[in-house]
Amino acid sequence: MALDTLGEFGLIDEIRRRFASPNGMTGIGDDCAIIPQQSGLDTLVSTDLIVEDIHFLRSDMRPYDIGWRSAAVNISDIAAMGGTPFATFLSVALPQSVDHEWITQFIDGYQAISQQYNVALLGGDTTSSPDKIVVNVGVLGTAPHGTAKRRDTAQEGDWVCVTGALGDAAAGLHIILNNHERDNDIARQLLAHHYRPTPQVEAGLALARMPEVHAMMDISDGVASDLRHILEASHVGAFVDLDSIPLSPALRSYAAQHSLDALQLALAGGEDFELLFTMAPNTPLATPYYKIGTITQGNDLQWSDPSRNFKGFTHF
Amino acid sequence: MALDTLGEFGLIDEIRRRFASPNGMTGIGDDCAIIPQQSGLDTLVSTDLIVEDIHFLRSDMRPYDIGWRSAAVNISDIAAMGGTPFATFLSVALPQSVDHEWITQFIDGYQAISQQYNVALLGGDTTSSPDKIVVNVGVLGTAPHGTAKRRDTAQEGDWVCVTGALGDAAAGLHIILNNHERDNDIARQLLAHHYRPTPQVEAGLALARMPEVHAMMDISDGVASDLRHILEASHVGAFVDLDSIPLSPALRSYAAQHSLDALQLALAGGEDFELLFTMAPNTPLATPYYKIGTITQGNDLQWSDPSRNFKGFTHF
Repeated sequence: MALDTLGEFGLIDEIRRRFASPNGMTGIGDDCAIIPQQSGLDTLVSTDLIVEDIHFLRSDMRPYDIGWRSAAVNISDIAAMGGTPFATFLSVALPQSVDHEWITQFIDGYQAISQQYNVALLGGDTTSSPDKIVVNVGVLGTAPHGTAKRRDTAQEGDWVCVTGALGDAAAGLHIILNNHERDNDIARQLLAHHYRPTPQVEAGLALARMPEVHAMMDISDGVASDLRHILEASHVGAFVDLDSIPLSPALRSYAAQHSLDALQLALAGGEDFELLFTMAPNTPLATPYYKIGTITQGNDLQWSDPSRNFKGFTHF
Repeated sequence: MALDTLGEFGLIDEIRRRFASPNGMTGIGDDCAIIPQQSGLDTLVSTDLIVEDIHFLRSDMRPYDIGWRSAAVNISDIAAMGGTPFATFLSVALPQSVDHEWITQFIDGYQAISQQYNVALLGGDTTSSPDKIVVNVGVLGTAPHGTAKRRDTAQEGDWVCVTGALGDAAAGLHIILNNHERDNDIARQLLAHHYRPTPQVEAGLALARMPEVHAMMDISDGVASDLRHILEASHVGAFVDLDSIPLSPALRSYAAQHSLDALQLALAGGEDFELLFTMAPNTPLATPYYKIGTITQGNDLQWSDPSRNFKGFTHF
């Protein structure tokens, strides 16, 4: 069987089947592993691997933004469970074609977001690479014991919600891939979402304090793919109201201008790093949110327009 | 400045200069970061990045051994500080040229050493790669608070010791690179040290219990390079007696047969993953060890034969 047949999630399932998690620990299958500590704070751990020409093109992304993004997607994994990130570990493999200036700017971006979120860099590894830049970041965070929000805890009747507008990052990538005009406010806003995503740590912490919030994750592959992870882990289905998907004015304009399907960008595009969560209906929240659907019986993901279908990003 | 001028340790220094470790935590510059926990157990964390054609050749290393080795070098980082490893995080980037059978055998090897050391796999990341296999492993361990052995604690007058014979792994690599005969007992022993290194977890734990043991690390780049890290971190020098370097009979035979300098393989070859430590003279140890030198004033690394010089492995 070839890798593209097995797919990312088939590979993860194969690995998970073979490695049981020790008592009390939560391992493979959520945004982070959860390791209970006697202090009453659980340790959260996640890791993300970024490879040139798969996750970014060197010609299209400034080293500052690659540095920013490498840390951002990991910090977002801690936000996804409602934790507080406190440290990262940075591994980089660099080809000879990368010069000192590139590295300095990469570190500038990595440091800027790390400082913004008060996250230390505690270690890593550096090595050479034959041709492609490779960056792996591991992140550690904490959450009071038992409060980290998981994917397998959605309940029938829950509202399905997101913390912000969807699709801007995908539209930013679309601008790059199609070499569209960048020198206008709309393009700049969409590109910023792609190049410098904002992990929703504050929102995650606020949501984690609410026991009525049941399941949570961050949106890295698009709601169409990510919501399915919650449904599978929780053994439930969902109905999503396409009219209630939050779309920014910039995304609407860009989609109209280029005759694109804004919903496709919003639901299948991924990398928004907003939070996707389910909660008991009508729970009063201090955090701004958008209700986009409802958790149902069964295991289907139904769209309000049954003629539509959306498929999220896969890594193979 | 190009990367090869900056070098691995220049790059690490540049990063370390920019990121201070939070109060109480030990960050960049040792085998592991040390994160104190209220439980009285410190958490140890390390990470290693392995790239095809830099760290291994696909044609020369079986996927089982790549899996074994990926976990082994990380478990060794915990052993290096005298900790107990308990969990790893595995990130892999795989090109389309890798098939399911390759992955299965890779996981077989990773699982075998993980079970041997009772280490769980708690998470990771999988993605595609344009051409090279990339593996990053992060590892977590524990040590009673304050007992983890560091690099910056060697004291003048200490004995410099190692836990086992040096150079077998380098000789194994030499067999591969020179396409020498593999079908004999000597070659098999040397190749095993290269393909399936043995992390010295038990020895590390025993040494960590001894307050007379001062500095410790694992030998990944060769004593010539690794001992210098201890000297720099501890602001001391060392005298190494070349006649006391432990060499296996297999290494002696192989070196004699091919007119090689066994000491060069032993001191500059690296990847033995034995432990290098310093301790108060004449400390009685239950762990087998070999005294190879003494910690001195100053900051020089002196060999007993001043006409000789040895240089460890560097990653750029």
